[in-house]
Amino acid sequence: MTSAIVLGGSRGIGKAISESLKDIEIDVFATSKKDIDTSDLDSVRKFLKKHTQTDILILNTGGPPPKQFLDITEDDWKLYHNQLFLGFCTILQNIKINDDGYIFLISSNVIKEPNEKLIISSAYRAAFSEVFKILSKNYAEKNINCINIAPGPINTDRTKELIENVKEFEKSLPMKRLGEPEEIGNFIKGIIENNVKYLSGVTINFDGANSNYVF
Amino acid sequence: MTSAIVLGGSRGIGKAISESLKDIEIDVFATSKKDIDTSDLDSVRKFLKKHTQTDILILNTGGPPPKQFLDITEDDWKLYHNQLFLGFCTILQNIKINDDGYIFLISSNVIKEPNEKLIISSAYRAAFSEVFKILSKNYAEKNINCINIAPGPINTDRTKELIENVKEFEKSLPMKRLGEPEEIGNFIKGIIENNVKYLSGVTINFDGANSNYVF
Amino acid sequence: MTSAIVLGGSRGIGKAISESLKDIEIDVFATSKKDIDTSDLDSVRKFLKKHTQTDILILNTGGPPPKQFLDITEDDWKLYHNQLFLGFCTILQNIKINDDGYIFLISSNVIKEPNEKLIISSAYRAAFSEVFKILSKNYAEKNINCINIAPGPINTDRTKELIENVKEFEKSLPMKRLGEPEEIGNFIKGIIENNVKYLSGVTINFDGANSNYVF
Amino acid sequence: MTSAIVLGGSRGIGKAISESLKDIEIDVFATSKKDIDTSDLDSVRKFLKKHTQTDILILNTGGPPPKQFLDITEDDWKLYHNQLFLGFCTILQNIKINDDGYIFLISSNVIKEPNEKLIISSAYRAAFSEVFKILSKNYAEKNINCINIAPGPINTDRTKELIENVKEFEKSLPMKRLGEPEEIGNFIKGIIENNVKYLSGVTINFDGANSNYVF
Repeated sequence: MTSAIVLGGSRGIGKAISESLKDIEIDVFATSKKDIDTSDLDSVRKFLKKHTQTDILILNTGGPPPKQFLDITEDDWKLYHNQLFLGFCTILQNIKINDDGYIFLISSNVIKEPNEKLIISSAYRAAFSEVFKILSKNYAEKNINCINIAPGPINTDRTKELIENVKEFEKSLPMKRLGEPEEIGNFIKGIIENNVKYLSGVTINFDGANSNYVF
Repeated sequence: MTSAIVLGGSRGIGKAISESLKDIEIDVFATSKKDIDTSDLDSVRKFLKKHTQTDILILNTGGPPPKQFLDITEDDWKLYHNQLFLGFCTILQNIKINDDGYIFLISSNVIKEPNEKLIISSAYRAAFSEVFKILSKNYAEKNINCINIAPGPINTDRTKELIENVKEFEKSLPMKRLGEPEEIGNFIKGIIENNVKYLSGVTINFDGANSNYVF
Repeated sequence: MTSAIVLGGSRGIGKAISESLKDIEIDVFATSKKDIDTSDLDSVRKFLKKHTQTDILILNTGGPPPKQFLDITEDDWKLYHNQLFLGFCTILQNIKINDDGYIFLISSNVIKEPNEKLIISSAYRAAFSEVFKILSKNYAEKNINCINIAPGPINTDRTKELIENVKEFEKSLPMKRLGEPEEIGNFIKGIIENNVKYLSGVTINFDGANSNYVF
Repeated sequence: MTSAIVLGGSRGIGKAISESLKDIEIDVFATSKKDIDTSDLDSVRKFLKKHTQTDILILNTGGPPPKQFLDITEDDWKLYHNQLFLGFCTILQNIKINDDGYIFLISSNVIKEPNEKLIISSAYRAAFSEVFKILSKNYAEKNINCINIAPGPINTDRTKELIENVKEFEKSLPMKRLGEPEEIGNFIKGIIENNVKYLSGVTINFDGANSNYVF
């Protein structure tokens, strides 16, 4: 039976992915902060002692609260450096992804079009996207896919915190609505259930035609 | 019943997409050059008189033979301007995509990492990718998705023509093999059968981790 | 003495470049539409009979009037295909750039962030940028630089035509003003007078921090 | 008199920039590791107590030695997180750039085409490029330019350490040679002496046509 670990699997996009994978009979471990907190490297290492391999790994974590550049403290940088970058690196350095497996990174469209309010997230998610791109070439030899999904505005608690007037904001979007977490879950499900293996080393905007950069 | 028009549907990637769509009970019209030849605008207009609407449209066409820049004639430019750009524009100006539909463009990864041998293809496929990106915002209002798939080395007759020693070439690829047309077909199938609608205005490298650009 | 041909050199950005080059004792031929009209291939070929070589070439031309996608005719596409793409290709196929020379392309930031109003320009300027990138590798062998400058909102007659209320628009820009054509001219002057030769195959946004894409 | 602080100004690219700026009568403080070590935040903060403002700032630092992903330790990540990212952030949070000034970031072309051997550098230089892009919009209000120069293979001690056979490597480059640090210095000089102010928020490949990505 195929196994999956979904980080941040107890809510939002992570939860939706977990449910989509369960739909196709995958044995999903949807982690919550109690299981692994990527902002705390001790927690990460502890998790990796018990969880040494998986077929599918979903690298997913929430982002920091919005903060002006001048107000970001050294502790803020270091905390989110762990949460958005170093925790993920530590996981990939230590976990075995089984041959023919998949790794999905849930990043954010701010990696391409960075956002002042989300400056920490823009920086560290971009940093990890570089690492992930490089590693995709190594994982390819074992037929393991690395797929970076960069969501735009998705209907999660976080978006509701970040956006003051969601109804008004939605009118400004090309699709006149936020994306649903389930759409990301189902997209991933479609890739896995159809055994799409040549899709790797790729960053996929998932933003309802909202971004402006041509590629 | 859902209908699809697959341009260049009689061989290669187009054929594979047609078969994947038939798998999910879509009524597919897989065109051959007899039905529509995008390099000939009269043929395009004739086709559009009979085929005025569809739910799903796959914009797909072969590329020109490799040619050195200095050897490309005005006629070459104009022929492939029609085939790779103007034919597709004419179609989108005239065909009705039904609400909640999908348009997939099969371009090439040369749009991001252009290739001397494929200079004509690099140019005009990039040009159409710009148009497609712009239109994705308009189509979004009718819940129609525009998804640009940019394949890398795929196991088609064309690749065999372009690459001298395919076996040797495959060893240089991260996955040690060409991609299969069926993988693209199945990827598209996965999107449609799972009703993934927030994925639009996006260019998706489909190249087995072969490209080097980070995004 | 160093020679330069500046296409579209009688006004706007082209004129400013011409003047900047004259400042550093370059023998500039600033062409007007009477000398060469890149939308007319016969005019291009006639020009190339008389002008067979240069040290510096500035590929520069105005863009089409804004037009909705559905209103663009086959003749429109073909006219601007010539003006923005095929004329430039024909020139590069036929003119000799002397060793250690420079070719500057004045494109537009719409090649990265395409614009509905400027759909024709977005498409064909991107197409030529692909060709230019490819050729940069060949020209490099003769120490000839290919530099693609992609201007944002510049204070030209054209911008005043495109933007309804320029004063209001300027307030929305990061620098609270349009760029001046002279800034582009002086930028190019600085590269040439300082003999900067390793800068090639590059696209340089020139937009006063206005674009949003990270690179 | 115009003042400049050039980080890492005692050797390589930093030294060349310092000398180019001195050429145009700028009062340059070319720092060495004794003055400020961006990998040590205490050193950074000490520096910032004495140096509270400047007209021109050059953010420049060496990169880490090549290391395989699996061999990178937590200490390595943290050291270079400081050196390539957090040190620069701390500087920009605390130093005053005088109105009409310039900030140049010397990053690397690995931010666009990441490199397995330079995985740490690819990650953190990309992260800081995101921050720099965001800040360019704020600095624009004070007519301060943020210009990210992304060098390719430059003739420095570092390149000689990274590349085994430099002579052989040079043959593989489009220009058949490494770039010279002076070319970067002179490029920057040309921008400043010509008062080019509308060039901001831009990443400029400086790699002799070596990169393959179209933009």
